[in-house]
Amino acid sequence: MQPTVTQLTDRLLASYASAGGINHLDGKNLPSKRAISIITLDLLRLLFPGFFDEKLIHSSEIKTETVALLETVLASLEDEVYKSLEYSPPEGIAKKELRNLAHSRTLHFLGKLPEIRDLLHTDIEAAFNGDPAALSREEVIVAYPCVEGIAVQRLAHVLYLDGIPLIPRIMTEWAHARTGMDLHPGADIGTHFFVDHCTGTVVGETCIIGNHVKMYQGVGLVAKSLAAGQLLRGQKRHPTIEDYVTIYAGATIVGGDTIIGEHSTIGANVTVTGSVPSHSLVVQKDANVSVMSKKTRTKSAAEFQI
Amino acid sequence: MQPTVTQLTDRLLASYASAGGINHLDGKNLPSKRAISIITLDLLRLLFPGFFDEKLIHSSEIKTETVALLETVLASLEDEVYKSLEYSPPEGIAKKELRNLAHSRTLHFLGKLPEIRDLLHTDIEAAFNGDPAALSREEVIVAYPCVEGIAVQRLAHVLYLDGIPLIPRIMTEWAHARTGMDLHPGADIGTHFFVDHCTGTVVGETCIIGNHVKMYQGVGLVAKSLAAGQLLRGQKRHPTIEDYVTIYAGATIVGGDTIIGEHSTIGANVTVTGSVPSHSLVVQKDANVSVMSKKTRTKSAAEFQI
Amino acid sequence: MQPTVTQLTDRLLASYASAGGINHLDGKNLPSKRAISIITLDLLRLLFPGFFDEKLIHSSEIKTETVALLETVLASLEDEVYKSLEYSPPEGIAKKELRNLAHSRTLHFLGKLPEIRDLLHTDIEAAFNGDPAALSREEVIVAYPCVEGIAVQRLAHVLYLDGIPLIPRIMTEWAHARTGMDLHPGADIGTHFFVDHCTGTVVGETCIIGNHVKMYQGVGLVAKSLAAGQLLRGQKRHPTIEDYVTIYAGATIVGGDTIIGEHSTIGANVTVTGSVPSHSLVVQKDANVSVMSKKTRTKSAAEFQI
Repeated sequence: MQPTVTQLTDRLLASYASAGGINHLDGKNLPSKRAISIITLDLLRLLFPGFFDEKLIHSSEIKTETVALLETVLASLEDEVYKSLEYSPPEGIAKKELRNLAHSRTLHFLGKLPEIRDLLHTDIEAAFNGDPAALSREEVIVAYPCVEGIAVQRLAHVLYLDGIPLIPRIMTEWAHARTGMDLHPGADIGTHFFVDHCTGTVVGETCIIGNHVKMYQGVGLVAKSLAAGQLLRGQKRHPTIEDYVTIYAGATIVGGDTIIGEHSTIGANVTVTGSVPSHSLVVQKDANVSVMSKKTRTKSAAEFQI
Repeated sequence: MQPTVTQLTDRLLASYASAGGINHLDGKNLPSKRAISIITLDLLRLLFPGFFDEKLIHSSEIKTETVALLETVLASLEDEVYKSLEYSPPEGIAKKELRNLAHSRTLHFLGKLPEIRDLLHTDIEAAFNGDPAALSREEVIVAYPCVEGIAVQRLAHVLYLDGIPLIPRIMTEWAHARTGMDLHPGADIGTHFFVDHCTGTVVGETCIIGNHVKMYQGVGLVAKSLAAGQLLRGQKRHPTIEDYVTIYAGATIVGGDTIIGEHSTIGANVTVTGSVPSHSLVVQKDANVSVMSKKTRTKSAAEFQI
Repeated sequence: MQPTVTQLTDRLLASYASAGGINHLDGKNLPSKRAISIITLDLLRLLFPGFFDEKLIHSSEIKTETVALLETVLASLEDEVYKSLEYSPPEGIAKKELRNLAHSRTLHFLGKLPEIRDLLHTDIEAAFNGDPAALSREEVIVAYPCVEGIAVQRLAHVLYLDGIPLIPRIMTEWAHARTGMDLHPGADIGTHFFVDHCTGTVVGETCIIGNHVKMYQGVGLVAKSLAAGQLLRGQKRHPTIEDYVTIYAGATIVGGDTIIGEHSTIGANVTVTGSVPSHSLVVQKDANVSVMSKKTRTKSAAEFQI
């Protein structure tokens, strides 16, 4: 005896009623993932005109284009900021003031775009100078995922510092899905930041990263003990990386008290759980290398994988 | 002498004829990747109304919305299930019965959605409790990639157990592309499963994962020997992880006989190829730390990367 | 006092004027990321008819479909090739010859599609034979990310060898975003190449990879010293991997002089910085395993994460 669509519907509605998990108008509304993905892409178009557009931008039309785009972003971002403020209102703000607050916070954020462009300019320099495979700064903007990932983090960081909930994290998750790099909006990142390849690199909420830091794919700047879970909210749980540090692929650096001194190099696939002084070189213990005998060769080398 | 488009076409058609690799109506049809991506997104909308939609859902319209969505999914999923059953028919089923079979299997699958929601409820609890950066359960649903990745695996696992070929794997690959996490539909995953950051985490077909298991990005639960290749199909090739185990970033656990005992912790970047008892702590050998001399400092630290 | 949209616009325009970063018609135009993503998808449709389409392909219509698709790709790719040649023109070519050059280079590229299909045929064999979870070659094409990732690299490699700037890298970045695997267009990759899971795997510009090489997620074939940055352009900076080598998850192999001898196996999470002879087995030093005492058990295992 097979269920009918009506029966299936009733079961699902019962499940919604008991277990929740609906984003609807009766309760508080969350910002829309979809709206924020469109807004974020428009912000990237404002940061790098012509790079994220279907068409190129004539300098004759750049002003008109910019006004139109700014007005679009202002309107839609203000709506999402309003929803997120309504979702968790700042203390001592009356509900009727939230719309004005959303408007002023959004304008304040958009006013920061030129500063963000200045920071991104240093990141693009670092990428170009750091990678012999890069032909030009334009190629870096058009073809390096780190530009998009870092740009979105720097945008989200402004909203994060402004106390806007949810939206910054939704923005960086959008970039995480596109670049494979998970930079938390809370991280404090200096100038000339370059992450090559990006995939799998994770930077936690309370990281402090200095200037001229270079990292590769799969690097984790993560928390040590998550035992206390929610109790640790707000504490510094992620490492501090000083200026001119290089961190190679797959290295994991753990803990809020961990400080990697300036000009240090962390080798690939090592795990670092305590501070190291400046100019440190940290490398993995040598691997065991053996040559397989004729006999063992008869087995597939793959069988020796450990 | 440059080739004409006609010549290019003839060469390609010759290549199709000789090497194959066409998904066409003359042979068996494979399910459509595109159709399955739309179906999977609709299933996520059924699991979390309003979170994956353009618009929010009013409780007044939730019933109408749910009926409509269920009917859409039933029709399109049934078509894809039919194609996959036709592609590799279960033994002893006549071709003319396949349409009915596709219908009943699809209804059976949709009837499981409330159970899947119950499981996902435990996963969301685990994510919220495990991550101090999480502000609320809603933020977890809207901004944590693991929810999407695990939801799709739990959906695909039901189809996998029901013997539907191809579709489960296409579903989890869709989620893999979006989240960076590759959870095979065959894996048997307990309650309260949390993977933070997700990117690069791989869980193999024959893994058994207990309850309250927490993992991070880049964790691999993989097969030991792939020498025998296809001969190993169906054998348990991937590890068993018992309850309350924590596995940190980049750890690789190898082999079908490997059992990680309950309440164990596997540190970052270690490779584990055999079983460990409960309450084990497995960590990487300490890295070599040296401070670069003034002389070596004159070289770039990067040159020491090893 | 809040800024007006006009003020915000003026600040942004000032920033564009000072810091640049606009892709517009007044200067050299870069190829369009969006156009190249559409072209790359069409090329995948030409390589595997029916697998990347909304609809299946009847053999009756395959010829018409192929002609139409080839004409579309020829026109749009020629435009992008023209832009990239205009952006950095080959020596001794007059501007007025660039259009003809773009046309002939594009035709030459499209003429290589059958050869690329032959190579991909060997890759699909390798994936099917190497993975017990694979049910059929069709499942490999429809559900394995490595097929898409490797196909795009093999396409981009032809353009790279033909001296087309920018486009090859934009193509492989498109695939990187979709598969998590970053295969540089410059890498010279042999037959029967299989990368399982793909996420986080990086192959550098000057890598040479032999035949029958099998790799897993998170493998890095990377450069040793990036100190000299741009000065190293053109030099061999990435490893050579000989035939029948297997490289497990998270292994990092470093340096342009590093040669991994044939039939070698590199274990998970090891870092290799020098050459190893054929039939080598390279594995990580054993991890430290301890069992937590009753007392320490009272703490959360997670606290011991290192």
